[in-house]
Amino acid sequence: MATREELTLKIQDEKRSRNLSWKQIAEGIGPGSPILYTAALLGQMTLTKTEAENAARLLGLTAIEATILTEPPLRGSLPALPPTDPLIYRFHELVQTYGTTWKALIEEEFGDGIMSAIDFDMQIEREPNPKGDRVKINMSGKFLSYKRY
Amino acid sequence: MATREELTLKIQDEKRSRNLSWKQIAEGIGPGSPILYTAALLGQMTLTKTEAENAARLLGLTAIEATILTEPPLRGSLPALPPTDPLIYRFHELVQTYGTTWKALIEEEFGDGIMSAIDFDMQIEREPNPKGDRVKINMSGKFLSYKRY
Amino acid sequence: MATREELTLKIQDEKRSRNLSWKQIAEGIGPGSPILYTAALLGQMTLTKTEAENAARLLGLTAIEATILTEPPLRGSLPALPPTDPLIYRFHELVQTYGTTWKALIEEEFGDGIMSAIDFDMQIEREPNPKGDRVKINMSGKFLSYKRY
Amino acid sequence: MATREELTLKIQDEKRSRNLSWKQIAEGIGPGSPILYTAALLGQMTLTKTEAENAARLLGLTAIEATILTEPPLRGSLPALPPTDPLIYRFHELVQTYGTTWKALIEEEFGDGIMSAIDFDMQIEREPNPKGDRVKINMSGKFLSYKRY
Amino acid sequence: MATREELTLKIQDEKRSRNLSWKQIAEGIGPGSPILYTAALLGQMTLTKTEAENAARLLGLTAIEATILTEPPLRGSLPALPPTDPLIYRFHELVQTYGTTWKALIEEEFGDGIMSAIDFDMQIEREPNPKGDRVKINMSGKFLSYKRY
Amino acid sequence: MATREELTLKIQDEKRSRNLSWKQIAEGIGPGSPILYTAALLGQMTLTKTEAENAARLLGLTAIEATILTEPPLRGSLPALPPTDPLIYRFHELVQTYGTTWKALIEEEFGDGIMSAIDFDMQIEREPNPKGDRVKINMSGKFLSYKRY
Amino acid sequence: MATREELTLKIQDEKRSRNLSWKQIAEGIGPGSPILYTAALLGQMTLTKTEAENAARLLGLTAIEATILTEPPLRGSLPALPPTDPLIYRFHELVQTYGTTWKALIEEEFGDGIMSAIDFDMQIEREPNPKGDRVKINMSGKFLSYKRY
Amino acid sequence: MATREELTLKIQDEKRSRNLSWKQIAEGIGPGSPILYTAALLGQMTLTKTEAENAARLLGLTAIEATILTEPPLRGSLPALPPTDPLIYRFHELVQTYGTTWKALIEEEFGDGIMSAIDFDMQIEREPNPKGDRVKINMSGKFLSYKRY
Amino acid sequence: MATREELTLKIQDEKRSRNLSWKQIAEGIGPGSPILYTAALLGQMTLTKTEAENAARLLGLTAIEATILTEPPLRGSLPALPPTDPLIYRFHELVQTYGTTWKALIEEEFGDGIMSAIDFDMQIEREPNPKGDRVKINMSGKFLSYKRY
Amino acid sequence: MATREELTLKIQDEKRSRNLSWKQIAEGIGPGSPILYTAALLGQMTLTKTEAENAARLLGLTAIEATILTEPPLRGSLPALPPTDPLIYRFHELVQTYGTTWKALIEEEFGDGIMSAIDFDMQIEREPNPKGDRVKINMSGKFLSYKRY
Repeated sequence: MATREELTLKIQDEKRSRNLSWKQIAEGIGPGSPILYTAALLGQMTLTKTEAENAARLLGLTAIEATILTEPPLRGSLPALPPTDPLIYRFHELVQTYGTTWKALIEEEFGDGIMSAIDFDMQIEREPNPKGDRVKINMSGKFLSYKRY
Repeated sequence: MATREELTLKIQDEKRSRNLSWKQIAEGIGPGSPILYTAALLGQMTLTKTEAENAARLLGLTAIEATILTEPPLRGSLPALPPTDPLIYRFHELVQTYGTTWKALIEEEFGDGIMSAIDFDMQIEREPNPKGDRVKINMSGKFLSYKRY
Repeated sequence: MATREELTLKIQDEKRSRNLSWKQIAEGIGPGSPILYTAALLGQMTLTKTEAENAARLLGLTAIEATILTEPPLRGSLPALPPTDPLIYRFHELVQTYGTTWKALIEEEFGDGIMSAIDFDMQIEREPNPKGDRVKINMSGKFLSYKRY
Repeated sequence: MATREELTLKIQDEKRSRNLSWKQIAEGIGPGSPILYTAALLGQMTLTKTEAENAARLLGLTAIEATILTEPPLRGSLPALPPTDPLIYRFHELVQTYGTTWKALIEEEFGDGIMSAIDFDMQIEREPNPKGDRVKINMSGKFLSYKRY
Repeated sequence: MATREELTLKIQDEKRSRNLSWKQIAEGIGPGSPILYTAALLGQMTLTKTEAENAARLLGLTAIEATILTEPPLRGSLPALPPTDPLIYRFHELVQTYGTTWKALIEEEFGDGIMSAIDFDMQIEREPNPKGDRVKINMSGKFLSYKRY
Repeated sequence: MATREELTLKIQDEKRSRNLSWKQIAEGIGPGSPILYTAALLGQMTLTKTEAENAARLLGLTAIEATILTEPPLRGSLPALPPTDPLIYRFHELVQTYGTTWKALIEEEFGDGIMSAIDFDMQIEREPNPKGDRVKINMSGKFLSYKRY
Repeated sequence: MATREELTLKIQDEKRSRNLSWKQIAEGIGPGSPILYTAALLGQMTLTKTEAENAARLLGLTAIEATILTEPPLRGSLPALPPTDPLIYRFHELVQTYGTTWKALIEEEFGDGIMSAIDFDMQIEREPNPKGDRVKINMSGKFLSYKRY
Repeated sequence: MATREELTLKIQDEKRSRNLSWKQIAEGIGPGSPILYTAALLGQMTLTKTEAENAARLLGLTAIEATILTEPPLRGSLPALPPTDPLIYRFHELVQTYGTTWKALIEEEFGDGIMSAIDFDMQIEREPNPKGDRVKINMSGKFLSYKRY
Repeated sequence: MATREELTLKIQDEKRSRNLSWKQIAEGIGPGSPILYTAALLGQMTLTKTEAENAARLLGLTAIEATILTEPPLRGSLPALPPTDPLIYRFHELVQTYGTTWKALIEEEFGDGIMSAIDFDMQIEREPNPKGDRVKINMSGKFLSYKRY
Repeated sequence: MATREELTLKIQDEKRSRNLSWKQIAEGIGPGSPILYTAALLGQMTLTKTEAENAARLLGLTAIEATILTEPPLRGSLPALPPTDPLIYRFHELVQTYGTTWKALIEEEFGDGIMSAIDFDMQIEREPNPKGDRVKINMSGKFLSYKRY
């Protein structure tokens, strides 16, 4: 009767004792995005059956644990709101600072609707910079118009 | 004794009665990013003196109101937490879903530290797509390492 | 510098003094759903330009107020969470009681994803019943699969 | 001294290891609604004695656990408020967006009262659609008038 | 554009300047329960058209204000949760102390369901007692069984 | 080092396996109110030494557990606020709806003070009714005047 | 339609412009405790009719405002919880630190019950001390036993 | 790796099985205040090394547990805010009712500053009274002026 | 009946229209710390009578407003908790990150007690640094030992 | 599958049983700041590989536990917000009292931006003082200007 949180803790332990990086694990799971794979291992996304078997082999998980990785989790990764961890908080701060601006500019361009967080993908890259390297994040989400009925 | 919130309401009213878009206003303010300018007019960023004067001319603001636009605001644009507006909420949801993944991958790449939300810039674009256009957002923030002392 | 909340209060006052029902107002606005039109007048949805002009004529609103009705509002109609009003609370209670069940059954049928609250429509009807009439609500939202990337 | 939450975890584990769907389990429990049965197994509704025995046989539960399934649970399935899981959140968002509209239209049609969440039933169906299948939910709750005394 | 809260404040002022008690007002409104009438004047229940006209005559309210008294209010009378006022808090404390006991005993007697707070009535009386008079409250609510479907 | 919550869980388990009702248990404990006894077994009230011994014999509790039943518990039976369980929530809703009315009418009758929740008693009865039986609750609490000093 | 909060603000203004201390005001109101009188003027306690008239004369209040001072207020003086003001917070801190200790020792001495906050009085004095004067507060509340029924 | 909360639970168990009162334990610990000693055993204050050894002998604690009793705890004894237990809540209610009054009167007497909750002591006594005995609490805290710099 | 918050808004307006810096204002008020003076003008500290008169002359305040500046305010400068403004949040983050460390090291050095926030002073300086200037803050608070009694 | 919290508890236990002070441990770990080292051992900062090995040797930690000490933790040391512990609360109180003042003075000196809590260091010292020794804390954080783009 292990919860998804306990599986996440176990995965972090197995990763630590095998001295693997998230990137190495992602490469062993399949050709998909390391972001998607890491999020799945941290209990926020799902893997396909094959991907989950690869992850299980790599990290010493049981068959039942592999199955759990293919099931939609009860999403929500933050133990507190707003998040107390500074790295995660900065993203929350961007929502605080730019929330109404995003709303104004996206609605001006697209009309009344939202950027989907489901039909959504993302990349994270290191952007070399002489004044100090930068974290570059590209997000892309389908625009969904409010249906008129 | 007008508050910054009241100035934001006035700016939205002046924009509405002049039938201006945020993009048109931004072009009239200066060569900077329309995101930065919109955020400033919505009470979350600052304008330079010249930019504020341009904004005041365009929107019929007083000199004192132009001055207020150059002062650092008490930031925080969300009237509720988590945000109730669906467009803004989707960004909050991304933080909920991907928060721990961002932490894992950025720390793996850069070490212990954060992506700055201050030395930070952003673009928003329409990405044409036959299945439905997409909102594309590029963010770039300087990585800051925890100082060891 | 009227806020959307004040416009909602005004609309309720104009409706009251003209002794109009929401259904009568909806019929005067256009052929769309009375639910959509009522939600727009209560500050949660948008009207088209023509619909807003009809609403303005019917309720004695100014041109600027008609414009506001065409703009995406900062959505969120509940002054407290959970809602204190018993009629609204019962819907909240359904989410409390059936939330995990909806998740289990929709995911079993459709896979990992959500029912859209944007590409969404709804009807409300009276269902005559000898033991006491019933409120019948039909909802339909597009299923959106999590994008794999 | 197992809590109802632990029984729910066990049921999910037994279901997983038997490779059963909620629909299959529901068919094995009785002729009632799979929604009602799933909600009961997830700790939000009750089963009859016979239904509970069927469930116990199907899922390898003890007699005492079958008894627990016939007892009214302390309802409330959401570990956070508002719910962090996107599928469940969309229902919460509907309450946020349409709460006051439901109140206005139901009261206009029925008078002062509520739609019962107790004398209530529901169906969930897949609605095929060339632009993407839709989740269709039909709810029906008895209207209850405020008693005048 | 007066809100219901402002109407409640006005009613309390008019009552004060006319030196009327709630009981006297209730007698002037109609033959119904003074509890129901007081709750309506405090913005939590509705009056019939005749009752509202009587209330208006008694308290110097306008016709539009009388109309408002016949409309279902957005219920919820507590400015804070838990309530800070000691008299009201004691009732909250009873729910805290006896909540699970009520659940256990009502379900044992009636089965799975609730006591309605809608099909509900109540009396408040002074109970003379040599050790100090007591407040006696009798409540009666229809039992509603969870519908099986 | 068992907590009171664990003792409550154990009592519910023992009751279940002995197939006893709360009423039967109460009769075995003593001549007092079944409400008081049930509340004590659920961790909100205290039993006398004799009553606790009777309860222990009936439910197979240890001597130390019987002692715990005689000690004032850290009261508060609701795991969430407002309560998520519908049966308990309806009582909370009554406080929300009638809180200010109770205050107005009790103070009008008794002056400035409160109805005690300590010098307090209560009965719960089934009230037969052709339209559906009703739950009848009678409460009686001593009125306490604010001391003037 | 002034609220009690506005009356409190007015009283503080009148006190300031008359250059009166709370003690001087209390002496002008009557022979009762300055604590009780100050609390009444700050919207937490009630005055008798005579006391209220004295207060009105002293502070230039209207007859209707004097009446309000005789009515039980909706108690609760803290604009935030926990209180942000350091002087008030220290009392909250005492409840945090000593809450369970008070419970243990009072129950050991008196049995199961509470110290009344209604049949309650208090004195505040300056206690001269060479290391720095001390604030001395004496509280006395009637012990109330839980009624057994 | 026991937490302080677990030590508190153990102490309560040891006290119970030895049939000791807090007063008896306090007398066995040393000549200090039983309030201070009880608070220390409940995890809110510290004992000296000698006092802790006495407590350990009396209650059958280990040497390491005695050490823990000499360490400053992470203070805060309330599992919920506001406290749900009625005895403790009444103290919270006093802060709610009298908070601004204490601030007004202490500042009038002493100037801008606070009553220390650190350089603080307290006694609790039974005050015999024919109308019912009273709980008498005397508090004394050093007044601390805000430093001017 | 102006509140302290309104006075703070007025002071910020007067400062803006006079084009004064906080430092210039502080120099005009007296020889004390500009931090203390700024905090007083922002509604968190008090000025002496002379200082307040200087501030009033400089900023065009009334005599009554000068008086208010000498009165202890209801302290608490943050409109939200945790603070949403990034500059202020970073200080909150330090408390989050270093709170338990401060507790461990101060208690190890000084024993059980606290650093006073009342007998407290502070300086803020610019620390030139080739990699980017730094904000240097020196705090000094009297250590207060828990009184043993 | 130990969590970081459990490692922190273990470290405190090992420190206690070895009778070591935080300063002694810090000296054994390396030449860095004892604040940084203590924060790392309390789960808020990271150690280098060498430092972690030294800590492990000193405190009897396993190799895997040493590894955990080199990994960025999910920061946030406060179990409640605001913190209930008086020593930690005083720092929170400083943020409450001085938050807007820090914002005003730092922005006046440096322009729009923040003091970094990442490129940050700190010292804590005892400041001898005849009236009672003082805790002296020096903080230094790099000023970061909002990027204009």
